[in-house]
Amino acid sequence: MAYEFKVTRQIDFAETDMAGIMHFSNFFRFMEAAETAFFRSLGQSIYPKDFRTVGWPRVHADCDFKRPLRFEDLVEIHLLVRAKGEKSLTYTFIFRKLNEAPIREVARGSVVAACVSRDKPGGKMTAVAIPPEIASLIEVAPEHLFATDSD
Amino acid sequence: MAYEFKVTRQIDFAETDMAGIMHFSNFFRFMEAAETAFFRSLGQSIYPKDFRTVGWPRVHADCDFKRPLRFEDLVEIHLLVRAKGEKSLTYTFIFRKLNEAPIREVARGSVVAACVSRDKPGGKMTAVAIPPEIASLIEVAPEHLFATDSD
Amino acid sequence: MAYEFKVTRQIDFAETDMAGIMHFSNFFRFMEAAETAFFRSLGQSIYPKDFRTVGWPRVHADCDFKRPLRFEDLVEIHLLVRAKGEKSLTYTFIFRKLNEAPIREVARGSVVAACVSRDKPGGKMTAVAIPPEIASLIEVAPEHLFATDSD
Amino acid sequence: MAYEFKVTRQIDFAETDMAGIMHFSNFFRFMEAAETAFFRSLGQSIYPKDFRTVGWPRVHADCDFKRPLRFEDLVEIHLLVRAKGEKSLTYTFIFRKLNEAPIREVARGSVVAACVSRDKPGGKMTAVAIPPEIASLIEVAPEHLFATDSD
Repeated sequence: MAYEFKVTRQIDFAETDMAGIMHFSNFFRFMEAAETAFFRSLGQSIYPKDFRTVGWPRVHADCDFKRPLRFEDLVEIHLLVRAKGEKSLTYTFIFRKLNEAPIREVARGSVVAACVSRDKPGGKMTAVAIPPEIASLIEVAPEHLFATDSD
Repeated sequence: MAYEFKVTRQIDFAETDMAGIMHFSNFFRFMEAAETAFFRSLGQSIYPKDFRTVGWPRVHADCDFKRPLRFEDLVEIHLLVRAKGEKSLTYTFIFRKLNEAPIREVARGSVVAACVSRDKPGGKMTAVAIPPEIASLIEVAPEHLFATDSD
Repeated sequence: MAYEFKVTRQIDFAETDMAGIMHFSNFFRFMEAAETAFFRSLGQSIYPKDFRTVGWPRVHADCDFKRPLRFEDLVEIHLLVRAKGEKSLTYTFIFRKLNEAPIREVARGSVVAACVSRDKPGGKMTAVAIPPEIASLIEVAPEHLFATDSD
Repeated sequence: MAYEFKVTRQIDFAETDMAGIMHFSNFFRFMEAAETAFFRSLGQSIYPKDFRTVGWPRVHADCDFKRPLRFEDLVEIHLLVRAKGEKSLTYTFIFRKLNEAPIREVARGSVVAACVSRDKPGGKMTAVAIPPEIASLIEVAPEHLFATDSD
């Protein structure tokens, strides 16, 4: 059973804005990238080619921004499973800047993803129970991993 | 004194994803677009060409997604000033899909933007009081405007 | 028969990069936005909800960048039909900055879009003849409209 | 002296569109990502923190799209220096899909980047000669590397 995953990204030039920092919308894209990599680490896909299996639209997303990221910074996105419902998964994402000592938390966000099925590709989505072959692979992370870095 | 602003966008093909709906990160971009248009409506710019004046980095953003938006949908982004601090502004954004009757709320988000100054372009940001020439233009929206559409 | 269309966009903060100008990838997104609006002006959709009808993937895109666009600039994207093949359409896009006198061309690009059909949603694409109900609406623009602004 | 560099990317969910393939604008973002990584491999930065040194705005970009990329595909972006002018560099980018045998070229693009200096951050850009400390590191790639995969 898995409850965490880490991915590292280097900030692209295209991800910066005229304030000289990474545009905040990219934090949300990085959360999703960590989530899809987490699924791959379990031998699953967040969006299987066979549309009849489940999809995971977001029903909530949030982020607190503590320090900016800049071009060429290395950031670790640490996914932690926060809650496991019958029909949804809640993740916490801790962003840490790796290319500066001490390594510090720069942002923290969360996503609630609903498990849905579709009647046809691009069709209407209905919330459904997480399939047992996925639910059996995932568990909630231990509480201490959510502690905020003191700084 | 102003407390609200509305902008309308039509969903671009490039804003969709393979699930056939608008990618959720664009809701956050649209919030920012409404915020910059709100500033323009006050004769201000969210990012003045003279870098010595203030900027508005986000310290928090969240969104609840209720219904998907699709290619060519028309969405209204209704900005409401939720709170006005000494050094920050908090906005609520209500997204309503206009091209379908009845018009319904599809998402609702919020942003906390800190007022900062920079020592030089791209330089270190320090939280400062909102300049009086901006603060005097903005007030908190009346409570009833935040009511959720019953549906 | 139609051979041109114009749309106007105002540059979003999220479309800028740390060089203080609009990121060049957005010129390509704007070309596509003009193309989809051109189709709407004909009562068509570039991506009909019924997947069995045709789609228009790009087989070529290019752009020459002459002057930068900045935050809050107003840009007109002028689509001109350059060529009409049996199975493809070629467009020229002229970008003009509207918020500065004299109005000048800031970039010029082109796109070749192939007409394809799919055996199923998300399925394999096969080049097909442009359906007569679309081909009958579109013609090649007169040569003089492609003249470059002298400047 | 260096004339090539390779980076590999895995397609993010956010990079797909409703046609189920990677949106074409991302090919241009990937070209830039390869270019910035090429500079890093030389101990340089495409956008140095000290703004008085040179920047590299695009004056031209193009791409031919041969096969689509999809979610979770692995793509290699192979940068080749095509031409080295006094005040510009021209790159060719060959995209190859790695997660399918045989490995095939899926797209090929090019970028002309001008070497410019700025009078101040965000200020007016003037074309200048490539600084010797950069020019001395880069040479044009041998012709045979530009051969198109027969297929």
